[in-house]
Amino acid sequence: MFFQKSLPIFIEELAQIIDAKVDASGLLVKNVGPLDNLQEGIIGCYHNTKYKASLTEAKSGFCILKEEDKHLLKNDVIGLFTPTPYRAFGKAALYFYAKPQSTGEISKLADIHPSARIGKNCQIEAFAVVKSFAQIGDNTIIRSSCVIGDHVSIGSDSLLEHGVIMTNTLAGDRLYVKPGACIGQPGFGFHMDERGHFDIPQIGCVRIGNDVQIGANTTIDRGSQHDTVIGNFCRIDNLVQIAHNVELGDGCVIVSQVGIAGSAKLGKFVIAGGQVGIAGHLTIGDGVKIAAQSGLMRDVPAGETISGSPAIPIRDWHKQTIAIQRLSKK
Amino acid sequence: MFFQKSLPIFIEELAQIIDAKVDASGLLVKNVGPLDNLQEGIIGCYHNTKYKASLTEAKSGFCILKEEDKHLLKNDVIGLFTPTPYRAFGKAALYFYAKPQSTGEISKLADIHPSARIGKNCQIEAFAVVKSFAQIGDNTIIRSSCVIGDHVSIGSDSLLEHGVIMTNTLAGDRLYVKPGACIGQPGFGFHMDERGHFDIPQIGCVRIGNDVQIGANTTIDRGSQHDTVIGNFCRIDNLVQIAHNVELGDGCVIVSQVGIAGSAKLGKFVIAGGQVGIAGHLTIGDGVKIAAQSGLMRDVPAGETISGSPAIPIRDWHKQTIAIQRLSKK
Amino acid sequence: MFFQKSLPIFIEELAQIIDAKVDASGLLVKNVGPLDNLQEGIIGCYHNTKYKASLTEAKSGFCILKEEDKHLLKNDVIGLFTPTPYRAFGKAALYFYAKPQSTGEISKLADIHPSARIGKNCQIEAFAVVKSFAQIGDNTIIRSSCVIGDHVSIGSDSLLEHGVIMTNTLAGDRLYVKPGACIGQPGFGFHMDERGHFDIPQIGCVRIGNDVQIGANTTIDRGSQHDTVIGNFCRIDNLVQIAHNVELGDGCVIVSQVGIAGSAKLGKFVIAGGQVGIAGHLTIGDGVKIAAQSGLMRDVPAGETISGSPAIPIRDWHKQTIAIQRLSKK
Repeated sequence: MFFQKSLPIFIEELAQIIDAKVDASGLLVKNVGPLDNLQEGIIGCYHNTKYKASLTEAKSGFCILKEEDKHLLKNDVIGLFTPTPYRAFGKAALYFYAKPQSTGEISKLADIHPSARIGKNCQIEAFAVVKSFAQIGDNTIIRSSCVIGDHVSIGSDSLLEHGVIMTNTLAGDRLYVKPGACIGQPGFGFHMDERGHFDIPQIGCVRIGNDVQIGANTTIDRGSQHDTVIGNFCRIDNLVQIAHNVELGDGCVIVSQVGIAGSAKLGKFVIAGGQVGIAGHLTIGDGVKIAAQSGLMRDVPAGETISGSPAIPIRDWHKQTIAIQRLSKK
Repeated sequence: MFFQKSLPIFIEELAQIIDAKVDASGLLVKNVGPLDNLQEGIIGCYHNTKYKASLTEAKSGFCILKEEDKHLLKNDVIGLFTPTPYRAFGKAALYFYAKPQSTGEISKLADIHPSARIGKNCQIEAFAVVKSFAQIGDNTIIRSSCVIGDHVSIGSDSLLEHGVIMTNTLAGDRLYVKPGACIGQPGFGFHMDERGHFDIPQIGCVRIGNDVQIGANTTIDRGSQHDTVIGNFCRIDNLVQIAHNVELGDGCVIVSQVGIAGSAKLGKFVIAGGQVGIAGHLTIGDGVKIAAQSGLMRDVPAGETISGSPAIPIRDWHKQTIAIQRLSKK
Repeated sequence: MFFQKSLPIFIEELAQIIDAKVDASGLLVKNVGPLDNLQEGIIGCYHNTKYKASLTEAKSGFCILKEEDKHLLKNDVIGLFTPTPYRAFGKAALYFYAKPQSTGEISKLADIHPSARIGKNCQIEAFAVVKSFAQIGDNTIIRSSCVIGDHVSIGSDSLLEHGVIMTNTLAGDRLYVKPGACIGQPGFGFHMDERGHFDIPQIGCVRIGNDVQIGANTTIDRGSQHDTVIGNFCRIDNLVQIAHNVELGDGCVIVSQVGIAGSAKLGKFVIAGGQVGIAGHLTIGDGVKIAAQSGLMRDVPAGETISGSPAIPIRDWHKQTIAIQRLSKK
């Protein structure tokens, strides 16, 4: 009902699309589905050992999995093999459920400044506002109630869901922003003073790379003097706070409700679990993994996995947790 | 000024409405009021021992309380007795301050798709958008700047405050959503990959029971394949994150800034205090109570009360807290 | 591009504007800039010892700093001296980048109720809604997609960024609200009950002093019976939750993602670090400083600095942290 589905496809054709090996042909795949509800014509994915029983109990259907898990295929379930099952499953799902495409329609109820430059085949919905000198790339969709501020630039093939507010931002291609996100407002910068705090004008912007995704009701402040930078491929979840001058390297994964304070610099492919807090002015190396709810108060070298508040290397944190639990049992 | 108030009512009539016992009649009640400001004609409520002094120092007025607290009534304060004082107070307040009722007016400045089915006596305000094939039940109010997505269904007697964005959702009756909540956007689902993360199409929806309340700027993602489910009577506070495939049983109470990760299943009447984090794929039993700021990394059996990060039974957590404090005093 | 800049100014004139001492004249200042990029004509600020090297390595330009740091001026960098460098820098930045001023234009696409009273020289943008009997002070800017509810009052010289939703609120002058903030919705008040929770009508309002700043997607609930109160000069960051009946004294600084539960009372100039949680009904004294991620479960006397969850005096918390780390190394 909510989604439009493509027609069934032969398993050998789908295997080619998703780059997986299959030892069957001539069978129709009708849809993707969850592993605990595999049926004839349905293709699922095994990529989390927590759901092993769902696979071994399945009676029929197709399953994408690693070759090393082949022995888990029982009954009439047919395997499709690949080293990256979840990615392949994503491709299968994308075959059946294509991404929204621009209709090319500009609503008469949108308010678009004459100086704005709108690319080819853009969709701009009712009550969206595009302000002066904004630039929107080709095939981009701006949904209802979005605001694109003066001089903002958004690349091509992007999608801004309803109610996104973007000001003082330069963004790349294939940007996807979920509803209610606020990007580009001034940061929390002021001189604290009993005469009344004195605001420091925030004159940087937000620069966003290509293929970035930003979550619902997330807030990203613009830089105070330098810019706030979001690298290519970053995935930012809902209700995340990214303060002024923060820099995220390429591929960072920032889970819901994380807060990153001003001027912190994260390397490439840093993963921050839910509700993590990162103090201001820290440097977090490439590939650092941060457990949920951790609080970072110091720089972290590349490759480290850390946990706790204050955060420490996770092996130490495990020891610490055990020691504390032992202590309370004395 | 902000609220329209009903006319005064005799105490014996009000007692009947709120289902409480009173040993007085012929006296007029003019308004509800806080316990620390009881006066003639004002009715308050005693339900939190923290405010005992406010009651014992009151000179006059009416107070709803448990019969066992009768001895706290001093001076000319008149008691109304019930086993559930706060509920009775709610009813009294509701007598004086009725819920907003639909005016039945559809603004000419709303953008409603011709295929949408709008019930009887709905109020839809300026700059609200109702997209194709959406269904809105009778007497429902959709305030300014809301977006109701394609095929969304909302039951009767509901109220969506300003700026609510709801897509891919099927909701029951008497839904109340506070401003800025985002419901139904795709979840945080992708294959992590140094070639660039690969998004998994999110093709479930959000199913919401009857009598649910959702807080301001809260985010509820739709299911990835299964649905995200919010049971009847659930109360969800502001700035809460509910990820894809989460299931809340009936009557759950989720306090502000809680984050519930993907595919976690909560039983009935689970209470999660402020800023709690619940990891993905966990099962939390009926009636579990979770102290504020706790971090859940394991399943929790029904009826347990837990605290801490990582969360443990609260009796152990108290011991642990004491042991740690002792340790630091050595 | 995003910001309009004033013309260059002689250093002695700028020194007078920002109330700093300088021992030079006739040199032009063209812009403010970050300390790590000082150049001829650019003025920076030294106020964080973390960036000492940036100052000592700078070749030329101007730097605002304390007189006691004079020895850090190397090469051709010219100092401007003041006891409060960051405030002075703010003034310099404000010289070059003036605050947005109202254009005095009321968009034809705004929906303004005839009973609303709009001050002189207000700017109200497209798709903003101003409801019945609302009052807006002189020179105030209401950006696109804001909603100003019935009877709301906003003072003069205020700025509400895009998508702000304000109901049941009385606000002072020079209010600044960042995008997406929701102010004045009903609080999380209900009687918990297995028959279905029973909502308590929330009949207070939000009262906001002068010179207050409220962050993006922050939520401030109105009072249940008393009012929610935000004192003068308060600075509230993004994604903060302020529950019903909370009172903030003058000058409080509430960093991102803090949650303050119902009826908590904070004194003057309380500073709460990021992700702090404050339980309901607590009293926090004047000048209390709360470290990031702390969880407050008890009243805190004036002047105390606290940390941890549950929060304790910070000197004890440091001892505790060290003791725990020692423990895990045994």
